[in-house]
Amino acid sequence: MINMTGKEIEKLLKAVKNGTKSVEEALEVLRTFPYTDLGFARIDHHRELRTGYPEIVYCAGKSARQVAEIFRVMIQKENNVIGTRVTPEIYEAVRKVSPGVVYYPEARILSLQNKKPETPRTKIAVITAGTSDIPVAEEAAVTSELLGNGVIRIYDAGVAGIHRLVDKLPEIRKCKVIIVVAGMEGALASVVGGLVDIPVIAVPTSVGYGASFGGISALLAMLTSCSAGVTVVNIDNGFGAGFSASMINRMK
Amino acid sequence: MINMTGKEIEKLLKAVKNGTKSVEEALEVLRTFPYTDLGFARIDHHRELRTGYPEIVYCAGKSARQVAEIFRVMIQKENNVIGTRVTPEIYEAVRKVSPGVVYYPEARILSLQNKKPETPRTKIAVITAGTSDIPVAEEAAVTSELLGNGVIRIYDAGVAGIHRLVDKLPEIRKCKVIIVVAGMEGALASVVGGLVDIPVIAVPTSVGYGASFGGISALLAMLTSCSAGVTVVNIDNGFGAGFSASMINRMK
Amino acid sequence: MINMTGKEIEKLLKAVKNGTKSVEEALEVLRTFPYTDLGFARIDHHRELRTGYPEIVYCAGKSARQVAEIFRVMIQKENNVIGTRVTPEIYEAVRKVSPGVVYYPEARILSLQNKKPETPRTKIAVITAGTSDIPVAEEAAVTSELLGNGVIRIYDAGVAGIHRLVDKLPEIRKCKVIIVVAGMEGALASVVGGLVDIPVIAVPTSVGYGASFGGISALLAMLTSCSAGVTVVNIDNGFGAGFSASMINRMK
Amino acid sequence: MINMTGKEIEKLLKAVKNGTKSVEEALEVLRTFPYTDLGFARIDHHRELRTGYPEIVYCAGKSARQVAEIFRVMIQKENNVIGTRVTPEIYEAVRKVSPGVVYYPEARILSLQNKKPETPRTKIAVITAGTSDIPVAEEAAVTSELLGNGVIRIYDAGVAGIHRLVDKLPEIRKCKVIIVVAGMEGALASVVGGLVDIPVIAVPTSVGYGASFGGISALLAMLTSCSAGVTVVNIDNGFGAGFSASMINRMK
Amino acid sequence: MINMTGKEIEKLLKAVKNGTKSVEEALEVLRTFPYTDLGFARIDHHRELRTGYPEIVYCAGKSARQVAEIFRVMIQKENNVIGTRVTPEIYEAVRKVSPGVVYYPEARILSLQNKKPETPRTKIAVITAGTSDIPVAEEAAVTSELLGNGVIRIYDAGVAGIHRLVDKLPEIRKCKVIIVVAGMEGALASVVGGLVDIPVIAVPTSVGYGASFGGISALLAMLTSCSAGVTVVNIDNGFGAGFSASMINRMK
Amino acid sequence: MINMTGKEIEKLLKAVKNGTKSVEEALEVLRTFPYTDLGFARIDHHRELRTGYPEIVYCAGKSARQVAEIFRVMIQKENNVIGTRVTPEIYEAVRKVSPGVVYYPEARILSLQNKKPETPRTKIAVITAGTSDIPVAEEAAVTSELLGNGVIRIYDAGVAGIHRLVDKLPEIRKCKVIIVVAGMEGALASVVGGLVDIPVIAVPTSVGYGASFGGISALLAMLTSCSAGVTVVNIDNGFGAGFSASMINRMK
Amino acid sequence: MINMTGKEIEKLLKAVKNGTKSVEEALEVLRTFPYTDLGFARIDHHRELRTGYPEIVYCAGKSARQVAEIFRVMIQKENNVIGTRVTPEIYEAVRKVSPGVVYYPEARILSLQNKKPETPRTKIAVITAGTSDIPVAEEAAVTSELLGNGVIRIYDAGVAGIHRLVDKLPEIRKCKVIIVVAGMEGALASVVGGLVDIPVIAVPTSVGYGASFGGISALLAMLTSCSAGVTVVNIDNGFGAGFSASMINRMK
Amino acid sequence: MINMTGKEIEKLLKAVKNGTKSVEEALEVLRTFPYTDLGFARIDHHRELRTGYPEIVYCAGKSARQVAEIFRVMIQKENNVIGTRVTPEIYEAVRKVSPGVVYYPEARILSLQNKKPETPRTKIAVITAGTSDIPVAEEAAVTSELLGNGVIRIYDAGVAGIHRLVDKLPEIRKCKVIIVVAGMEGALASVVGGLVDIPVIAVPTSVGYGASFGGISALLAMLTSCSAGVTVVNIDNGFGAGFSASMINRMK
Repeated sequence: MINMTGKEIEKLLKAVKNGTKSVEEALEVLRTFPYTDLGFARIDHHRELRTGYPEIVYCAGKSARQVAEIFRVMIQKENNVIGTRVTPEIYEAVRKVSPGVVYYPEARILSLQNKKPETPRTKIAVITAGTSDIPVAEEAAVTSELLGNGVIRIYDAGVAGIHRLVDKLPEIRKCKVIIVVAGMEGALASVVGGLVDIPVIAVPTSVGYGASFGGISALLAMLTSCSAGVTVVNIDNGFGAGFSASMINRMK
Repeated sequence: MINMTGKEIEKLLKAVKNGTKSVEEALEVLRTFPYTDLGFARIDHHRELRTGYPEIVYCAGKSARQVAEIFRVMIQKENNVIGTRVTPEIYEAVRKVSPGVVYYPEARILSLQNKKPETPRTKIAVITAGTSDIPVAEEAAVTSELLGNGVIRIYDAGVAGIHRLVDKLPEIRKCKVIIVVAGMEGALASVVGGLVDIPVIAVPTSVGYGASFGGISALLAMLTSCSAGVTVVNIDNGFGAGFSASMINRMK
Repeated sequence: MINMTGKEIEKLLKAVKNGTKSVEEALEVLRTFPYTDLGFARIDHHRELRTGYPEIVYCAGKSARQVAEIFRVMIQKENNVIGTRVTPEIYEAVRKVSPGVVYYPEARILSLQNKKPETPRTKIAVITAGTSDIPVAEEAAVTSELLGNGVIRIYDAGVAGIHRLVDKLPEIRKCKVIIVVAGMEGALASVVGGLVDIPVIAVPTSVGYGASFGGISALLAMLTSCSAGVTVVNIDNGFGAGFSASMINRMK
Repeated sequence: MINMTGKEIEKLLKAVKNGTKSVEEALEVLRTFPYTDLGFARIDHHRELRTGYPEIVYCAGKSARQVAEIFRVMIQKENNVIGTRVTPEIYEAVRKVSPGVVYYPEARILSLQNKKPETPRTKIAVITAGTSDIPVAEEAAVTSELLGNGVIRIYDAGVAGIHRLVDKLPEIRKCKVIIVVAGMEGALASVVGGLVDIPVIAVPTSVGYGASFGGISALLAMLTSCSAGVTVVNIDNGFGAGFSASMINRMK
Repeated sequence: MINMTGKEIEKLLKAVKNGTKSVEEALEVLRTFPYTDLGFARIDHHRELRTGYPEIVYCAGKSARQVAEIFRVMIQKENNVIGTRVTPEIYEAVRKVSPGVVYYPEARILSLQNKKPETPRTKIAVITAGTSDIPVAEEAAVTSELLGNGVIRIYDAGVAGIHRLVDKLPEIRKCKVIIVVAGMEGALASVVGGLVDIPVIAVPTSVGYGASFGGISALLAMLTSCSAGVTVVNIDNGFGAGFSASMINRMK
Repeated sequence: MINMTGKEIEKLLKAVKNGTKSVEEALEVLRTFPYTDLGFARIDHHRELRTGYPEIVYCAGKSARQVAEIFRVMIQKENNVIGTRVTPEIYEAVRKVSPGVVYYPEARILSLQNKKPETPRTKIAVITAGTSDIPVAEEAAVTSELLGNGVIRIYDAGVAGIHRLVDKLPEIRKCKVIIVVAGMEGALASVVGGLVDIPVIAVPTSVGYGASFGGISALLAMLTSCSAGVTVVNIDNGFGAGFSASMINRMK
Repeated sequence: MINMTGKEIEKLLKAVKNGTKSVEEALEVLRTFPYTDLGFARIDHHRELRTGYPEIVYCAGKSARQVAEIFRVMIQKENNVIGTRVTPEIYEAVRKVSPGVVYYPEARILSLQNKKPETPRTKIAVITAGTSDIPVAEEAAVTSELLGNGVIRIYDAGVAGIHRLVDKLPEIRKCKVIIVVAGMEGALASVVGGLVDIPVIAVPTSVGYGASFGGISALLAMLTSCSAGVTVVNIDNGFGAGFSASMINRMK
Repeated sequence: MINMTGKEIEKLLKAVKNGTKSVEEALEVLRTFPYTDLGFARIDHHRELRTGYPEIVYCAGKSARQVAEIFRVMIQKENNVIGTRVTPEIYEAVRKVSPGVVYYPEARILSLQNKKPETPRTKIAVITAGTSDIPVAEEAAVTSELLGNGVIRIYDAGVAGIHRLVDKLPEIRKCKVIIVVAGMEGALASVVGGLVDIPVIAVPTSVGYGASFGGISALLAMLTSCSAGVTVVNIDNGFGAGFSASMINRMK
């Protein structure tokens, strides 16, 4: 209900006034905001219209059966769906009810794309510090691509060999937003932030051991970055970075 | 002994005075408070009388054999028992000695109900932010039901799609107490607390990843909620929430 | 808007239909939910009607001037107000614009009471482990009293001298809800919870030193209490405990 | 040197080839990247050219004398300067050497603006949960304004009274980026993120007590937000939020 | 009541049986366990009889007036009292009502000793790693002495100059229990524990900076000591160490 | 060398003076302190003489082969050995080289006892809060017994049913030292400490979930216990508690 | 590019001036810093020349296939390679493409050595507190050896039996740098640091349980060591310690 | 005693044999290791001989009177002394008894230098990320200088403006060891470590706010640095870094 704009409420009220809608019908509209209740999950069919983005299903903690059921309902509505943190088992279950899904195993993403989004001319750069950060980076990159953006991937360009980053700078500077994915000390976000004048979305990863504390060190380093223009998402949250980057890149 | 009320002590003392009980007998009463010592566990047979609630067995860290033994003793006393955190293995072991038990696999609860509790007219609402929070919510809901309460379940109504909560508000407001189950940032507790004038018991769950830190983020958010009327139980403690909610709902 | 019940919306829609209200007027009602915008704070005049509780002003982090301005506006609406975490300086500033306020220095509460709430027959027990926990306990007790409840205070009854608790048990057991206020290891909540069958709201305090970590030890102990029926509020949050306890005690 | 673009290096190399520059001169250029070394601080005069943003001086931990010296040098170069975390003492010291500075005491910002930045048509919304969050919000808002952006301020609109947010939604939805400033449980970021399709930059504040842990609870809640499109900056980092928001709002 | 031994209850019951005590009188005895209720504190007059130790008053968080009142009552009962964490202000207030008190400023202890405890032949060693640990060590040493024990002080004998410890070993080995007081990395506890066959009570101190984290490093080090025979008390808890050491030293 | 007492050094020096020992021989003595170097471990053959206790082998992180080799060497020296944290695999490996070993599976202890220690008349009480704490308690109890002490076990006597503790108090009070083993909120240590005048060694266990944080809650609660006379060992360190308790119980 | 020294840039500029290199060629040189891009990893062929050390491949989080591919490329360049955190599976995969590799299973190191480094006369001491610390110590020792240093291993010399350390002191004091590897309370670093005048590199290990917190206790203890001359590397970072020690030992 | 080398013991034993020293005298030597016991501190007069370094007095937590007394004793022995964390008050007190002391206020160091140390040709570089890190850097630099080393200071060269570091690289590369001092995200240590082949000693500082957590973020970042060759000291421990760097720089 909250998401109905002033205009929609106004239209509804007018319909009541005109007698086009009875009070009971109007109440019904307000009450039955369009979603399907599966018992264990509520699917919001208007979300894509509203946000220009497909329904997102976070699959960790859901059973294969539950995810398959969600996709089954979505197919009928011809919406786009992105599943994140998708295990091969879930993929197998979904494929049976929704054969058109595409699975990106490194990114752990499952995509059902009925309508192709328009692609802006500008691009998103996804940079990783190391090889071990690639799965999270792929989650960010594939999310960005499924939301309709072009992506430039620059992997294994950490500060221990900073020259590997430097020669990619011209390409990076042409992008509209940069996603930096790094574990351990996460210094790459600060270094990139100091070299460009473009928004940097930093993704700490749980890569590392000991005092990396599962990504806390990288997270803290990115939050306290001395470079302005860096914002941060949750540890290993490639999806969130890709989603926010897409919002920025698609702005008009 | 502590749990003997003043009255019980008075009665005992009078019995001594009257000669109905010898000093030795009285001492014996005080000493042999009625419980069975299994060596590894002490079963408190008077608990149900005292509290109006059945014996609760927290099964994590107990062997299947130990739990089965506890249920075996309880059967003989015709008490109600609730086992929590019950694995299928434990259930199998208990079923052999106590065929009347009922197992709720999602809630991981095992129930032996010899006497049905009276049911108050008011209800308890159990709301989850996401689908992954459902097992903890079921622990709360089944606990509430086994203690004799009616439960309204509203699952997957998190703040990312707050309209899904709003249209359930009239139903929620009729309840006497609300249990909010949420992981990740746990914001749902504050939002519900801001919309109702009913006690909210918030259960943080370990759902989430990265900076969720196994439920710490949700826990802290619920503790620091800006909405008055919210109290909090341990991470994933659906049982505790259901037990406290039942205490409140059954008040006269 | 969210807080408008289905009934209120229905009435509004009917008024539109009947022509009693124009569409523009109805929109205006929905848009101008009744609050006063002071720029730095928004005062919600309908809150007391809605919740049966007065407006609460958390004063930490607000200037004396800001708090005084808020009270000045409230006076005009003849609402009850409770200010928490009120320093003597704030009290002085408020007293000038609102001479009828009452200040409770130990509880750090400022009260403006225009309408006296009805008092239920049942009471709330407030128990502290030590003498140093009293300010937080007073915040809970005074909050409870201002919201219209009778309070039994039992102070300095910690587990190091548990007999001091035991002889108050009969009195405690007659209450409808218990607030336990304890710092250091916070064991009192578990002990009380094990002795009664009444909801316990536990308030960890920042009393203690070293590994008390400003109340974290007590907080964790209360959250992990082995006694069922214990829920927890934030460290030093006497107000929150009093508010929740009042909700429970005033239930019908 | 790193910040020299490929083009600049190419031009330099060509100049060497043409004999316009000797090898020694070219080396000198590479070596003497234009900054002034004050001993305790290096001022980067080309930064504004490079980034389109003025020099930023983080003043916490610097003496009044040091800050004044930095401003004194900047005046001569006719650059814009923003000082953050500026105490009144520092302001007094700077005013003596640079009378044109403007001080924003609530935002703790000191501004020397020699050239006015161009202003885009779109705006930035700055929303706070409570009154105590205003100083951090002002740091964000004033930073945004000094970087040339229009700002809409919506203060004290936290989730405990969510209707106060709802009626501002149409205005908020017209902005290009939203800054949400909240302490305690920080739920506002999730709620706003669930209601809009615009990038949200969340600023946790150190407002709160007990389990707020100086902003950690709000920080964690914002990082684990279930609403996509939310990125986070450091606790109390209003400046960083304003700077990133400006980057996004000024995009073409 | 709990502290009444079986014997005392038996005697009471016999008195009831014999008619020496009426039921009402017996109930009264059980109910009026001997303590004085000051409202803000309950003073336990039988504690010294029961434990062989004086009443202990932890003075942090108590007002000077409250502490003075507690001492005033104790004087009348001719008990021994030890006040810990006593500021000079509190001492001044107590001296007025109880001129016989002795103040140990470095140990922050206030002592009122009406009966001198018997002194065992064995002694307690108190060892510190550095000079800055001395106040905590003095709290331990003075506590031990007031409880009737002889104390050997060995200060500034940390592992950075381990030879300073070694030549005291013969003396240390003659003691019955050792208190090791150390901040920073707390290694001294492990080293002493490895050199002796006597119980070591380790007291971490908040001495140090940075990663000392107010004593956490020393605390963790002492808890994880690879030397068997080391137990630990709270950070800066010199009193607790002295009390436990006295219990052990006075054993027969 | 450090462990040589003054006397031993004196004797050695006299031998040199007398010519009984050459300088080279004396140097050799000082250098070849009696232990066997296995490369991966050094076995200290004189430890038992020196400390009156057997060699202790902490087996976590050691391979079955390594532990077997250590026991093989010890057999030859006819020393007592205690292995802790012994898996069934290690037991199998050791049994082959040292058939006389006894394995206590619940306590995870492996014992090789060539000489039986003398048993003091006084005993050690080992109390647990719950059934799940028993393995740690058994480590403490079996350690105590192998070091020659009598043990009284009182299991599952937590504060949620405190009467189960109370009726054992007379027996507990006859012991010379008490070991309290508890997870979750660890309140039992404070409660026992408040009821007795005997040293309490508290062992936090990793039993619990959520905010138990693997034993941290219990650890902090025990460290901040308001009952004097409580000292603490590492989480799950049953061995350490048994060892320290034995030191105290065997004192003369 | 950054790593090109002033001299190299000068030479390049001169070549441009002389016409030996065209501007395009020079740009190419600057752009194509010599590394091979495998897509998932960038191999830096000049690193060995530049640093005198081989390429290091951190293998945790890399697939066996990825590591094998990296080694395959390195063979062609005849460089030395060290792989760390190498599982047996990775070793098997690499052996197929690079049969000359040597695997050190305890140290989890994989070495491909085409050129033998020169060996300095001075040595590195590697000391462990316990047997369980040996794998980390071996990582340090093997790293040191592969980088061309002689190593003295002293294992199981912890402070609980400090005499085992003392008789090795003369040998230790002849080394140029010492690596101390310890878990639990990590006191060995302080003790060694107090006994020698040589740089000590401390490696905390995750050996221990409970309050060891996976190495945090040892880490904090080493950071707060009261012995000057101790620096610290990450938990379990044997490689880092060996690398730094080698840098120091090889200095001229 | 431990610090006596084998040679010294041999000499002593020979003296006993020869009759040059009686057994009693030899015992006396071993017992009276040369230090002065001030009661609150033990001064080790042989330390400078032994280590080639002066006595270090950590002054935090010591009274001005205590520090002055320590210096007074040292003067008589003509040793060098360095006091760290020296407040102006302490300086004033020491100056009275030891007029020759030199005070470095920014570094908070007090130096009494009776013998000038020899200066090696190589130097130590001290680099800071920001201006606020300078006090810690000065502690490192002045320590290095007082121990006889030449120092190159490069301040305010953080990664947000990395070109400021790059043009100093040739100078930095000529040093024998580098101290990097940085707060906030501490990325500078990784960046410097990636650019040089010289040991880097990283000093995290408590500069920063919010998620800097008093230096924890920088500390973790430095510990998890992806650049090999970086070791770390405690937060703000400029002295420790200078001391270790001096050890390395003075090696022969």
